Amino acid sequence: MNVSPADGRIPSGSDRLLRALLRQPVDMTPVWAMRQAGRYLPEYREVRERAGSFMRLCTTPELACEVTLQPLRRFHLDAAILFSDILTVPDAMGLGLRMSEKEGPQFERPLRTAADVARLGVPDPEDSLRYVLDAVRLIRRELAGRTPLIGFAGSPWTLATYMVEGGSSKEFGRIKGMMYADPATLHRLLDVNTRAVTAYLGAQIEAGAQAIMLFDTWGGVLTPRDYRGFSLHYMRQVVAGLKREAGGRRVPVILFTKGGGAWLEELAASGCDAVGVDWTTDLSDARRRVGGQVALQGNMDPSVLHAPPGRIRQEVQTILDSYGPGAGHVFNLGHGVHQHTDPGHLAVMVDAVHELSARIHVTGDGKAGARDA
Amino acid sequence: MNVSPADGRIPSGSDRLLRALLRQPVDMTPVWAMRQAGRYLPEYREVRERAGSFMRLCTTPELACEVTLQPLRRFHLDAAILFSDILTVPDAMGLGLRMSEKEGPQFERPLRTAADVARLGVPDPEDSLRYVLDAVRLIRRELAGRTPLIGFAGSPWTLATYMVEGGSSKEFGRIKGMMYADPATLHRLLDVNTRAVTAYLGAQIEAGAQAIMLFDTWGGVLTPRDYRGFSLHYMRQVVAGLKREAGGRRVPVILFTKGGGAWLEELAASGCDAVGVDWTTDLSDARRRVGGQVALQGNMDPSVLHAPPGRIRQEVQTILDSYGPGAGHVFNLGHGVHQHTDPGHLAVMVDAVHELSARIHVTGDGKAGARDA
Repeated sequence: MNVSPADGRIPSGSDRLLRALLRQPVDMTPVWAMRQAGRYLPEYREVRERAGSFMRLCTTPELACEVTLQPLRRFHLDAAILFSDILTVPDAMGLGLRMSEKEGPQFERPLRTAADVARLGVPDPEDSLRYVLDAVRLIRRELAGRTPLIGFAGSPWTLATYMVEGGSSKEFGRIKGMMYADPATLHRLLDVNTRAVTAYLGAQIEAGAQAIMLFDTWGGVLTPRDYRGFSLHYMRQVVAGLKREAGGRRVPVILFTKGGGAWLEELAASGCDAVGVDWTTDLSDARRRVGGQVALQGNMDPSVLHAPPGRIRQEVQTILDSYGPGAGHVFNLGHGVHQHTDPGHLAVMVDAVHELSARIHVTGDGKAGARDA
Repeated sequence: MNVSPADGRIPSGSDRLLRALLRQPVDMTPVWAMRQAGRYLPEYREVRERAGSFMRLCTTPELACEVTLQPLRRFHLDAAILFSDILTVPDAMGLGLRMSEKEGPQFERPLRTAADVARLGVPDPEDSLRYVLDAVRLIRRELAGRTPLIGFAGSPWTLATYMVEGGSSKEFGRIKGMMYADPATLHRLLDVNTRAVTAYLGAQIEAGAQAIMLFDTWGGVLTPRDYRGFSLHYMRQVVAGLKREAGGRRVPVILFTKGGGAWLEELAASGCDAVGVDWTTDLSDARRRVGGQVALQGNMDPSVLHAPPGRIRQEVQTILDSYGPGAGHVFNLGHGVHQHTDPGHLAVMVDAVHELSARIHVTGDGKAGARDA
């Protein structure tokens, strides 16, 4: 059941992700997992302990590189994703990020007034975020072309929620208060964030990131009108502002609004190459709705990994069937791997995607991707 | 700007809610707010402190009655909603509920195995939940027909999440683990919950509840397939099992799946009278999609109440316009009132709904509801 580069069944694993994101034919559906590097892996916990703090792990390129590569040694993944945190950007803007195991991320200097926002500047990534770019360069060197590297950032709106709330939130009372009482200040903040994220992702591409994902973790807490005006609008600007070619290849951009199933059509029309879909939307519906404009990434509930292996394989099959034949699907979870996941169960998922999708992509005459339109 | 029974502009406020839920013409759009009795009110905090614990408040009919009535003394609300908690039902099933200010609800004996589930029985509401029914009877007596009383319960799935997780959850790893690994046990639990909730709501109706709301707080964390199989299916059974008449009047049933905007059509076809809608769906879209099958309740983001009064009125107008003319709209928030809300701002919302909607419901010749189809 193992499917590895060594056994010859994957002719070109390094290309699979980038091709699928551009809706080009592939031999098997590529697969990776959000938070594939993380606390569910004992080897991650070992390095994390050695680092002393989460931020130390993020800011030390050798350690960030090490944990980025860890899941690739265990699983036959089709992508590496930079180990970092979306809040490094507001930290570089001077808000003072502290990561607490218990309380989550917290900013020492959250933004509360128009004056706080007016003081913000766009950080030079090669200066205050150099540690991330060094990690990107190091990871690319270590990967040596075997697996593509995905870079990422938080969406302008999602970053703003943490910057105004001062940390995680359930109700988003402060930022929504600002949105309703003083929208001009919030737009000013989102504009700075947009420029910061665009510069940061541009620098990641220059440093070697081969695909980019924009995480809009909290776009789904907005009304349709406010989602358009305060989140999607700024993501569109980020997408438009990126030079999406490096080394003669297109750098695909993936947008993911968690809980944004209602807005797939608008996400697909944003100029991105692919849209992430969580498990609350069927991939078959999602595919029909985006009408071949973009690739789709998703959408297994990470909780399925708590089930026995047979059930995991069955769910992989259901999701592959839901997307159906043809190019443009990247298999993923609809959210990050849970902390208490058995790593062996993620291996079952990854191998099942390759094994079961090979049947979809190979036609009777043995040619890969011939079914693709 | 005050609109009160005393100034004669509301001919029949006591009927407004029940008529709107049955899509009958009204003079003004009725309005109430989820968690209208709660911590944002100083008089609530005073009684809560006197009670010593949240559960004491729920289990003492006089105190439950008092806090139920508090918001009606402040605001021109068109409904009272029983002050209680959805977790009184699993508590009556023997799970041992503790309410902690910091950690939220916790069960002393959560359900972890098939044997735990097999031991569960359906409680007799007039026995172990008698304190709720006594509160209902007392509130009805105090209201004396001036304002209708809404009873409620948690959906079988939502109750099950707390019973299996042992409290609140973000990832729902345990219950989804059960769902994927041992669905038969989960279905057994949902069946017991369905019978318990049906008996409990039936007893509330008999005690005097004039409308019923079923809160499916966590249906939105499921895939479409699992939502149908593990949540909606059982809500449909509850609806079908209720005797929906009391004192010669129909007792309308409202279903509310938070984050369930994708499934409005299916909710509308469940046999209920009205569907709750959160702010992530436009009411105009929702109305088009349910096609006159049911009334709609919602859908202002409670965060709007952090805005200045003028902005709150503007948002009320937007939501009234979004629903449009005709019967079948109950104005509400899309989630409970936030703890740090200024009570004066809720008053602004309630009065704006009445004032601005009177124009919708009254035609040129001054007759109420004449536009209604």
